[in-house]
Amino acid sequence: MFFSDEYFMGIALRQAEMAFEEGEIPVGAVVVCQERIIAKAYNQTERLNDVTAHAEMLALTAATQYLGAKYLKDCTLYVTLEPCLMCAGAIYWSQLGRLVFAASDDKRGFENVKQTVLHPKTILIKGVLQHESEELLRNFFKKLRT
Amino acid sequence: MFFSDEYFMGIALRQAEMAFEEGEIPVGAVVVCQERIIAKAYNQTERLNDVTAHAEMLALTAATQYLGAKYLKDCTLYVTLEPCLMCAGAIYWSQLGRLVFAASDDKRGFENVKQTVLHPKTILIKGVLQHESEELLRNFFKKLRT
Repeated sequence: MFFSDEYFMGIALRQAEMAFEEGEIPVGAVVVCQERIIAKAYNQTERLNDVTAHAEMLALTAATQYLGAKYLKDCTLYVTLEPCLMCAGAIYWSQLGRLVFAASDDKRGFENVKQTVLHPKTILIKGVLQHESEELLRNFFKKLRT
Repeated sequence: MFFSDEYFMGIALRQAEMAFEEGEIPVGAVVVCQERIIAKAYNQTERLNDVTAHAEMLALTAATQYLGAKYLKDCTLYVTLEPCLMCAGAIYWSQLGRLVFAASDDKRGFENVKQTVLHPKTILIKGVLQHESEELLRNFFKKLRT
């Protein structure tokens, strides 16, 4: 059976929805290795009172714990928002195989830095379920303002 | 009583020495708030099997847990090596008041990025106990090769 990038991003989006329901900025992430999900996480900066508790950081740490390996060369990280520099730095250290993100983050996304931040071997794919993620984020900030 | 930057960096260096003794790349960090140390940590990437377990990340998380606050505007982070992009990103999110580092990291340090990575309000001081930190790192990599 073949699972598409859209399929796994859909699961990351459900993680983002769980963040939304808890009043966290809705970002979700999953790590997939050989078509199997080995880690799921959503942003918990408010709940954990920890600015480093982004969905990607939690998912990367959970994935390495699961594998018992420090590197994620054969894994794909799906995340609903373009990673920030902190998360991109962590992705670099993990030597991630593939990074797939949905919505872009024009303000704090790692692509705002002109230099390459990712590991040279990391394949980058963007825009998968972009509109769904953007809508969720828009709804969150709209709700926050009212 | 007045404690100098050298005093607190000396404590960060002792953390780095603990990393050294455990076979970790010797980097140590302390967070100081109103002349009181509220967090100490050293690099534990090997022990925790986690590429995100840099001294700075562990110290920042411990500091926010201690304070019960997400931001470290009135705190100083002392770290024995120039932070990488991941750690600089975390430092950005924490809105740290002052960052003091010892040795520079010409390869993976955040200053290799041309753009400003730190929060505009974060004061940056470098080179405090630089030689001591460099020597510890040199000894570590020399030992690793033999």
